[in-house]
Amino acid sequence: MNKTQQQISEGILFTDQYQLTMAQLYYRIGLHEKKAQFDYFFRDYPDYGSHKSGYCVNAGLEWLLDWMGEARFGALEIEQLKSQRSSTGEQLFADDFLDWLSKNGNFESVTLYSIPEGRVVHPNTPLAVVQGDLAMAQILETSLLNHLTYQTLIATKASRMKDNCCSQLLMEFGLRRAQERAAIAGTRAALIGGADFSSNVGISHVLGIPPKGTHAHSMVQVFLALGATELDAFRAFAEIYPDDCILLVDTINTLESGVPNAIRVFEELRKKGHQPAGIRLDSGDLAFLSIHSAKQLNDAGFPDAKIVLSNQLDELAIWQITSQIQREAERYGVDPDSLLDRLAYGVGTGLITSKGDAALDGVYKLVALEEEGQWIPAIKISETPQKTLIPGNKRLWRVYDERGKATADLIALHDEDVENLDPLVLRHPSLTSMRRALTKDQFSKIEPLLLPVFDGGKPVYQSPSIEEMRTQRQDDLKMLDPGVRRLVNPHIYHVSISQTLWDLKKNLVQKYERNNA
Amino acid sequence: MNKTQQQISEGILFTDQYQLTMAQLYYRIGLHEKKAQFDYFFRDYPDYGSHKSGYCVNAGLEWLLDWMGEARFGALEIEQLKSQRSSTGEQLFADDFLDWLSKNGNFESVTLYSIPEGRVVHPNTPLAVVQGDLAMAQILETSLLNHLTYQTLIATKASRMKDNCCSQLLMEFGLRRAQERAAIAGTRAALIGGADFSSNVGISHVLGIPPKGTHAHSMVQVFLALGATELDAFRAFAEIYPDDCILLVDTINTLESGVPNAIRVFEELRKKGHQPAGIRLDSGDLAFLSIHSAKQLNDAGFPDAKIVLSNQLDELAIWQITSQIQREAERYGVDPDSLLDRLAYGVGTGLITSKGDAALDGVYKLVALEEEGQWIPAIKISETPQKTLIPGNKRLWRVYDERGKATADLIALHDEDVENLDPLVLRHPSLTSMRRALTKDQFSKIEPLLLPVFDGGKPVYQSPSIEEMRTQRQDDLKMLDPGVRRLVNPHIYHVSISQTLWDLKKNLVQKYERNNA
Repeated sequence: MNKTQQQISEGILFTDQYQLTMAQLYYRIGLHEKKAQFDYFFRDYPDYGSHKSGYCVNAGLEWLLDWMGEARFGALEIEQLKSQRSSTGEQLFADDFLDWLSKNGNFESVTLYSIPEGRVVHPNTPLAVVQGDLAMAQILETSLLNHLTYQTLIATKASRMKDNCCSQLLMEFGLRRAQERAAIAGTRAALIGGADFSSNVGISHVLGIPPKGTHAHSMVQVFLALGATELDAFRAFAEIYPDDCILLVDTINTLESGVPNAIRVFEELRKKGHQPAGIRLDSGDLAFLSIHSAKQLNDAGFPDAKIVLSNQLDELAIWQITSQIQREAERYGVDPDSLLDRLAYGVGTGLITSKGDAALDGVYKLVALEEEGQWIPAIKISETPQKTLIPGNKRLWRVYDERGKATADLIALHDEDVENLDPLVLRHPSLTSMRRALTKDQFSKIEPLLLPVFDGGKPVYQSPSIEEMRTQRQDDLKMLDPGVRRLVNPHIYHVSISQTLWDLKKNLVQKYERNNA
Repeated sequence: MNKTQQQISEGILFTDQYQLTMAQLYYRIGLHEKKAQFDYFFRDYPDYGSHKSGYCVNAGLEWLLDWMGEARFGALEIEQLKSQRSSTGEQLFADDFLDWLSKNGNFESVTLYSIPEGRVVHPNTPLAVVQGDLAMAQILETSLLNHLTYQTLIATKASRMKDNCCSQLLMEFGLRRAQERAAIAGTRAALIGGADFSSNVGISHVLGIPPKGTHAHSMVQVFLALGATELDAFRAFAEIYPDDCILLVDTINTLESGVPNAIRVFEELRKKGHQPAGIRLDSGDLAFLSIHSAKQLNDAGFPDAKIVLSNQLDELAIWQITSQIQREAERYGVDPDSLLDRLAYGVGTGLITSKGDAALDGVYKLVALEEEGQWIPAIKISETPQKTLIPGNKRLWRVYDERGKATADLIALHDEDVENLDPLVLRHPSLTSMRRALTKDQFSKIEPLLLPVFDGGKPVYQSPSIEEMRTQRQDDLKMLDPGVRRLVNPHIYHVSISQTLWDLKKNLVQKYERNNA
């Protein structure tokens, strides 16, 4: 692709064709500048098959806002659309509509509210609320979902891994097997969600987080092919990187060749006054090899040398390795806790592709239209009651119980004074019998979650740094019941709607059913 | 991200950190300009869990070549690397190495051979052969794998879907749930692999394939929210797109509201001299609803109106739907074959994320180093015999049997005269007992598969058009035994090595084992 082609494919035409055909229809019948509200939410947590998440980590917003600020129908884009033909050969998009697009085809009419990146989020709650002219708010759908769902998916996966590697270093290594340039956004999301570092050089520099990496098997192979040895390869590496010397020890035989050779080189480094960094294991039974490598390193006087594990890791593999070490290490004279403390994890494909569930089922639904300055709720009924939309101009709140733990996310109408309700009624969005009423002393805080982030064609929000997002994520995770954080079969976090919203929804459903009876 | 940040993250720094630390090591010991050969191959077909592919469709090459032609270490990239620090605070990449990179840090030294896009390919065969200066050939690894494996994965998934939708239209609808900008490459790969059209506007224009799409539920919802009806919405749409009128019929109730309303609008269109295009079903039991929608359309005199199916489709879902129609349609007075002929399929998440297996396990391995003008084979031994590398400077051939069917892919040394071997010995890469010897009359053709595609810093190859790649794919698929194309439990296609290569590998393994005994 050349630069022009990249502009065409990544700009405002990074959308679905039907958004444009609908926009032209709205233009034709005079609804294109009618104010509409769409909610973005996802329907369920990622389900990885044998395990499932009990929470997600929100991500992707900053780059969506960048895209919204830049994307518009310029001459290049209009020229593309003008070339489209109906099946009978006429111009598909009429000149008057294209004129309107070339003047108004940007996001200046759109106001976006969103929950910040790094926050823990839950299904069926509005994570972004879009208010704007119907035509452009409709065109936004595809790119908004694309930007937000992918990064949220990867940040969530990273958080699950980080949460299960005993607070040790987690490194993202997935660029080679990633979905082409999604690797860049995926790396960012991984760094928000739990990865401490990434091997991906370019985006690490952009984000100000040093890229990490040492050497591959191919380096040892080059030495072997030239008649030299693994030890020669290790010595050459240590010579150049004496203070960052992580040696990959499994090219020939981990315990009989790699670790003993690494120890010789570490001894040489130490004599020269350097601190050897550690070894990396990239094949075989990683728990077994960790224990036995640790034993050799301990016996040789390197109890602090790190052991980096890589190869097909995901959160379950990390859990399996840490469990096996806890069970077996002592039998070989290795203290399991000190071993777990010296481990680090390099995760590739399993993180960057969200192994087991490669897409978050995000949706973007019309919930209100403005009539004479008032937001009129729109509803869509589904035969599955859980899929019936929650209508209206809403906001999202997080309710903390008397212990300070997050007890529910509450969806309420935008003008409800939820902080002063007593009791605060939390209703299940669709099941009548499931409701709680909290008196003032049963909750400690109600926190509004949606902030205005885009208005008048530009971001109106200073995105937090990656470091701030990580702190936010850790704070939110601490507020969750530990059962919600379980890898397998997590507790279900409560997502509730207010009594007022419940009544509104019920009335709309009844009205709809009367009309269609 | 701003433009500079995009340049940093998508250019030559779209690589792993360890490629750079190894490159500096090669520079320091004087091996950086030694000629090396790396093979790209994948280890196994995609395994989707309950089903598995028996072939792959190669894709991604053209954009890799574009990247290789542009990517280089310019001032911006050098500045980034200069800022990296070792753990003791020194400059990680030394000035002399950075000087070398700024002069030689491009792919002018690299010659790339590859199999063209659209061709059917198999595991453990060299699909790309890289020859070049060791440092830059090493740095290339990450981006090459990233570009080739993802598009091959998606082209393969698309081919499986197309192969099971009875030759009817297959449309790619995945942009919203795709992995961020990978949607663009993924759409291209889907169009190579079997999708006829995509909803993704920008990249469709770039590739010269008209984007497809009609309307969403939200359009009907807008009408409902304003007090109008589904019929009003359909009429408005038909008014504007009379010759491309595909109506989404499941917003309220498919068989009681959507289809009857569509039929009324179709009758009105016909009176005005237009040919109604069809309906789309996006929820529920798609096979059941297709049959009953077809019956209503037939009874109303619209037997040619298309029925587009979407919602969570993948190759198994398409197979289930076509099977159910074949079993059940007649019972309701609908001819199954005519119904299957009028169906079209819109596939979203399941295609663009390769549902069930989100990464192809591509690898890039050192197989030879040049010494005094000769390629000296390099080998890497694995405890798993199948993972022991096939060493040396090799080429790939496809052997067609006496019926003209592809019977094996043959890996041979680059200077073997395989076309004139009699018998032609095909050996399993690792199992001694598995060999075939074909006499001249037992095969009809031997076709070389690797072409020179990049040399001297630029592509030396005119990429075929998407249409030509599709033709190539169809031709290659016809040459496969039908068992290899099965969705579930496919036959295993033979990948073989020549007798000369077998002997070379055996000698190298024995020599290696003597040295390490």
